[in-house]
Amino acid sequence: MGVVRALILGQGFVASIFAIGVERIKRGEIDCYGVPLANELPIKIEDIEIVGSYDVDKSKIGKTIYEVAKNYWDGEIPETLKNVTIRKGIHLRSLRNLPIEAEGLEDEMSLKEAVEKLVEEWKELKPDVIVNTCTTEAFVPFGNKEELIKAIEENNKDRLTATQVYAYAAALYAKEVGGAAFVNTIPTLIANDPAFVELAKECDLVIFGDDGATGATPLTADVLAHLAQRNRYVKDIAQFNIGGNNDFLALTDKERNKSKEYTKSSIVKDILGYDTPHYIKPTGYLEPLGDKKFISMHMEYISFNGAVDELIINGRINDSPALAGLLVDLVRLGKIAIDKKEFGTVYPVNAFYMKNPGPKDMPNIPRTIAYEKLRMWAGLKPRWL
Amino acid sequence: MGVVRALILGQGFVASIFAIGVERIKRGEIDCYGVPLANELPIKIEDIEIVGSYDVDKSKIGKTIYEVAKNYWDGEIPETLKNVTIRKGIHLRSLRNLPIEAEGLEDEMSLKEAVEKLVEEWKELKPDVIVNTCTTEAFVPFGNKEELIKAIEENNKDRLTATQVYAYAAALYAKEVGGAAFVNTIPTLIANDPAFVELAKECDLVIFGDDGATGATPLTADVLAHLAQRNRYVKDIAQFNIGGNNDFLALTDKERNKSKEYTKSSIVKDILGYDTPHYIKPTGYLEPLGDKKFISMHMEYISFNGAVDELIINGRINDSPALAGLLVDLVRLGKIAIDKKEFGTVYPVNAFYMKNPGPKDMPNIPRTIAYEKLRMWAGLKPRWL
Amino acid sequence: MGVVRALILGQGFVASIFAIGVERIKRGEIDCYGVPLANELPIKIEDIEIVGSYDVDKSKIGKTIYEVAKNYWDGEIPETLKNVTIRKGIHLRSLRNLPIEAEGLEDEMSLKEAVEKLVEEWKELKPDVIVNTCTTEAFVPFGNKEELIKAIEENNKDRLTATQVYAYAAALYAKEVGGAAFVNTIPTLIANDPAFVELAKECDLVIFGDDGATGATPLTADVLAHLAQRNRYVKDIAQFNIGGNNDFLALTDKERNKSKEYTKSSIVKDILGYDTPHYIKPTGYLEPLGDKKFISMHMEYISFNGAVDELIINGRINDSPALAGLLVDLVRLGKIAIDKKEFGTVYPVNAFYMKNPGPKDMPNIPRTIAYEKLRMWAGLKPRWL
Amino acid sequence: MGVVRALILGQGFVASIFAIGVERIKRGEIDCYGVPLANELPIKIEDIEIVGSYDVDKSKIGKTIYEVAKNYWDGEIPETLKNVTIRKGIHLRSLRNLPIEAEGLEDEMSLKEAVEKLVEEWKELKPDVIVNTCTTEAFVPFGNKEELIKAIEENNKDRLTATQVYAYAAALYAKEVGGAAFVNTIPTLIANDPAFVELAKECDLVIFGDDGATGATPLTADVLAHLAQRNRYVKDIAQFNIGGNNDFLALTDKERNKSKEYTKSSIVKDILGYDTPHYIKPTGYLEPLGDKKFISMHMEYISFNGAVDELIINGRINDSPALAGLLVDLVRLGKIAIDKKEFGTVYPVNAFYMKNPGPKDMPNIPRTIAYEKLRMWAGLKPRWL
Repeated sequence: MGVVRALILGQGFVASIFAIGVERIKRGEIDCYGVPLANELPIKIEDIEIVGSYDVDKSKIGKTIYEVAKNYWDGEIPETLKNVTIRKGIHLRSLRNLPIEAEGLEDEMSLKEAVEKLVEEWKELKPDVIVNTCTTEAFVPFGNKEELIKAIEENNKDRLTATQVYAYAAALYAKEVGGAAFVNTIPTLIANDPAFVELAKECDLVIFGDDGATGATPLTADVLAHLAQRNRYVKDIAQFNIGGNNDFLALTDKERNKSKEYTKSSIVKDILGYDTPHYIKPTGYLEPLGDKKFISMHMEYISFNGAVDELIINGRINDSPALAGLLVDLVRLGKIAIDKKEFGTVYPVNAFYMKNPGPKDMPNIPRTIAYEKLRMWAGLKPRWL
Repeated sequence: MGVVRALILGQGFVASIFAIGVERIKRGEIDCYGVPLANELPIKIEDIEIVGSYDVDKSKIGKTIYEVAKNYWDGEIPETLKNVTIRKGIHLRSLRNLPIEAEGLEDEMSLKEAVEKLVEEWKELKPDVIVNTCTTEAFVPFGNKEELIKAIEENNKDRLTATQVYAYAAALYAKEVGGAAFVNTIPTLIANDPAFVELAKECDLVIFGDDGATGATPLTADVLAHLAQRNRYVKDIAQFNIGGNNDFLALTDKERNKSKEYTKSSIVKDILGYDTPHYIKPTGYLEPLGDKKFISMHMEYISFNGAVDELIINGRINDSPALAGLLVDLVRLGKIAIDKKEFGTVYPVNAFYMKNPGPKDMPNIPRTIAYEKLRMWAGLKPRWL
Repeated sequence: MGVVRALILGQGFVASIFAIGVERIKRGEIDCYGVPLANELPIKIEDIEIVGSYDVDKSKIGKTIYEVAKNYWDGEIPETLKNVTIRKGIHLRSLRNLPIEAEGLEDEMSLKEAVEKLVEEWKELKPDVIVNTCTTEAFVPFGNKEELIKAIEENNKDRLTATQVYAYAAALYAKEVGGAAFVNTIPTLIANDPAFVELAKECDLVIFGDDGATGATPLTADVLAHLAQRNRYVKDIAQFNIGGNNDFLALTDKERNKSKEYTKSSIVKDILGYDTPHYIKPTGYLEPLGDKKFISMHMEYISFNGAVDELIINGRINDSPALAGLLVDLVRLGKIAIDKKEFGTVYPVNAFYMKNPGPKDMPNIPRTIAYEKLRMWAGLKPRWL
Repeated sequence: MGVVRALILGQGFVASIFAIGVERIKRGEIDCYGVPLANELPIKIEDIEIVGSYDVDKSKIGKTIYEVAKNYWDGEIPETLKNVTIRKGIHLRSLRNLPIEAEGLEDEMSLKEAVEKLVEEWKELKPDVIVNTCTTEAFVPFGNKEELIKAIEENNKDRLTATQVYAYAAALYAKEVGGAAFVNTIPTLIANDPAFVELAKECDLVIFGDDGATGATPLTADVLAHLAQRNRYVKDIAQFNIGGNNDFLALTDKERNKSKEYTKSSIVKDILGYDTPHYIKPTGYLEPLGDKKFISMHMEYISFNGAVDELIINGRINDSPALAGLLVDLVRLGKIAIDKKEFGTVYPVNAFYMKNPGPKDMPNIPRTIAYEKLRMWAGLKPRWL
């Protein structure tokens, strides 16, 4: 089905592992473990080409992915990553309180001009799919398109976040080239913000989002589904996460954590069918854990005749590769969605890959089920249905 | 849809909790937690009537369920359980090496006569569904019907186990009354033995089996499905179980453990699509744990770009209520199958409720999927599909 | 050696379990499990007499311990607890933000008058040992005696906490009766505040404190000692706690958590001999967990030749009985210390029983070692030394 | 204090990591983590010299440690390990049922001649300390010296194991050179067999043994001590171990496991002061786990007022480095014991380093305490006492 051209926004840990892994698979060095649909899709992993990358970390701009990826990987970096040089993006305070010096297009021009500049560059780079892997931001969703456009027009830097500006630019770009996709892997609401979904439909943009489903949350969803299907009554759920990468450091910032208020914490209610007392949050930053977070979950539930059971789940999980593996599917599915002209957002994709599957008000469902729906959407045979 | 009449073979921990729980639900004392299909079925939990019970423990025969249930439950026992007196069944060494004095019909007569006696009694008790909750046995499957019939005719007590004789009697009974169901919750192959399935089809018997799916195994299946769907390569799986009930004591007997050789240990391969080194066995007996077993699982898997993750799952799980809750569904589904005339065995039921779903050579599938298939078979709307 | 007369400040979960447990031991109903020195001391558990109790919860004042204890214990409450009626104490905002209506002596009179009233009442009740089990407070230590006295004189209700006023009253009482003990089981610095230790020495008061060593912290100390003795280098430590009792609810209040700033978090450095990145805090409130908290710990360490090992410790621990069991020792050791005239504070006692053993700047040591030192201080043979 | 000359019996995983680690420490490449007494002893780690090595694996004999160590370590092997060539030792079925072709001196000569040959070679290599790290054997202890000598004289190959013959040879060697030490890190009873201790006293041999205390057992001892000191009543203990190195493979052999019958399983009773139901055994072999075993422990205990708490401990622990780090101390302590002329066996050393500390009938004590006793024996200041 030909090549898919991918462009990265935020050349951090996830995007670097994504770039390295794809190149290593192309070279036959590794298996495609961690890529849910492996090579079952008509677009092969080998067909992914990274055509551009943006960041706002002063120490990264102007360097190649090859150079930046060294920060995140001890092994040999594929030489092909020397071909892409990192360009300056939009920051809008997204690195505030992190030990990083930021610099963005909006420091030199209005947001409207910055958007135009991005669109121009993208028309030259010709990405099919634009992947947003920025740092978690403090944000407020828009709700309607007019508010969003107004904020851009008025250069309202306090109202907008980097992700929102990028998604807006992606829509303009899609309109000009007749179709593109935007994959949002962070909590900022895009696929769940009607403002963006409406705009996407008008502009021939596909949106996948929001918040890539890695780590403890999708596992919790499947374990809760397991209990729900046996009609066991879950009394309480505690879930802790602690890690040592920049994402955990960013979450120690209270403003950013507030952004979670806008995300549905509805996984518990969506799956169980009732709410139950739960404590599910990222819990802390511990530098030596690095990218391999420690998770701990505890659940109590009532079984037949009033018996009370307990489950404790602990894990050491590499955060960035988990998301990077999903990206390998998402860029290919983005291209497929463009070809199918499914503009707006695509729930059967989001339901499997995203913590907060858009559009707004759509529920979380057990991932095991979502997986089969996804396969059918993508034209593959279900695995067990 | 009217009452379902249930008969118990083996009035141990599971059967006693089943009897107590059903009566407490009838009295409105407790919710029906732990019963997967709750009160969604046309036959209600309140419609279950226990009409007979058999055992081979000398100290139980002749007592009422009310009296025997006291051994397994500290709370108040429903008075209605005084109505059923435990009759003498078949043992055939099934209690060998356990600290229990056994006595069975076959001590006084030939197996053929014992079967006839059972059928006569059952024609009087009129059960719809016969539930086998005997202790785990050392057994050899038959494979064809002729061998089975020959063993009965020749009174071959070394070849047959209690469960095999009971299932044979159930078939004869079904033939005489025009339909019945046999639910096999222990590892002895019945739904997986073509000898019994063939016989069942000829005699209008429904068989559900084998080996009720409680505890760590179905959870393992769903966690493996979770990993398989993300194409994570599972490097190894260790799963330990230790408990203090009679079932764990029975498994310390090597002969009995050998019976596991005939069961499919294919859960790993069925779900993952490949085999991987695993150690999955009941591990020991520790009396003070009682019916609440301790489980411990460890898995290592490869994620994207070669990253290695680990999961550890620990649990304290009440063994008998878990199975008893499934029985509340199985007796009702048995009646439904009779009404639907689905004689032989019913994979969509077995796939959700059984560790080793018959018929022979049918695979284990993720329980989350099996649940939806079951619902559709039972005429219910799928929950998430 | 005769009776020890105990008086309780804060008739909550811990104090109620303490009162119930002691009476049940007297009646021979239960073993003295959870009491470290069991009946090895010259003063027996049966010699403990509860002579008074104070609280500031409007719904408790005027009731007997018997009535209040019902909130915390489902079993039969010993009738003897009808003999003690709960009196009004000091609150000073200690219940702020908790769903409890508070009322204290200071609502009707100056702090100085309140202290005088307490001393008068105590002279009548004649306690040997006064046990403080108030809710965790937001506090600022004094450092010197003069500041403390000045705050009382000036009726400075914003500067003082309930515990500080109680400890001051205990000193005045000790001076009048020629010796008493004050056991501080909460984080407020008393044994670690030179102001109180100096006052105690002058007034013939024994202070034990601060912050009873229950739950995860002393276990962490012993596990760290285990690693330190093998010269394993601990890379990082994460420790989570979540529970459903009032103490966890109180800790969700940010002000109160700040009080932890004044406590030594030096357990890591004290035991390992170096500091290492750690995250050790109470983490959340989850009501259905009740008094049985869930703890989760993770440690990584470097072993020989650079090998990296990991330990994960999970527990379900009854919070209040753990502390109540220590109180059974502490009231008896308080009397022994009075008899030995060891006024001020007693490190060999604090080092075993307290998270933050006073006096100020004294280190945490492995509990296994502290236990032997304690035994020797108490005149008992060491167990293994 | 000059060099200590070490000789290895069994150049497997542990001995190879020991050799590599010591050389890397000499070269300043790594810290001495995992070596309990670090560089506090008068003999420094840099003073350890490996002067000889024996094995019975045909593929190792004649090779250098440098070549063999490659099987166990991916990193760069120190060149200095090219100086020692592995000689042929004694096997006596010790590799039976393992996928290894064995060859020993006793294949060509009588045991008596083999012993003489070893002694001759050792007189030339001049070791101070002989370290036994053979594979776990099936053995029967001797009890008295005469039986042992008779078995050698009569060439009774069925009665003797490799370790017993090596220890006998070590005694003869010690007698000839006026002092030597034998460190037994495997379960075969040497320090706990009066036959060997008596012989050692007569021959100026120091014995340390038996069974190096790595992994879960010493941690269990310290956790049990923690509970015992709080007078918590331990109801039950389950402890599982699973690993993928040769030692776990060897333990799948039933004969070898029987050897455990002769070892004291008294850790529970020694520490708690009473026996309690427990299941503590190596549980299985799972090749991909490699040298990093998975351990899982569960304990239930009764706290004050009858409350029941639970602890679950899981770990991933590198097996061979844990023991190799202890060896770095043991060879140095062996030399110190020779210099102190403490012939026979030395309990203060064994109590810290060994699972089954000799001499016979001596108890296990908490390691935290044992550590302080060890330090005092070795002339060091206690750390916390």
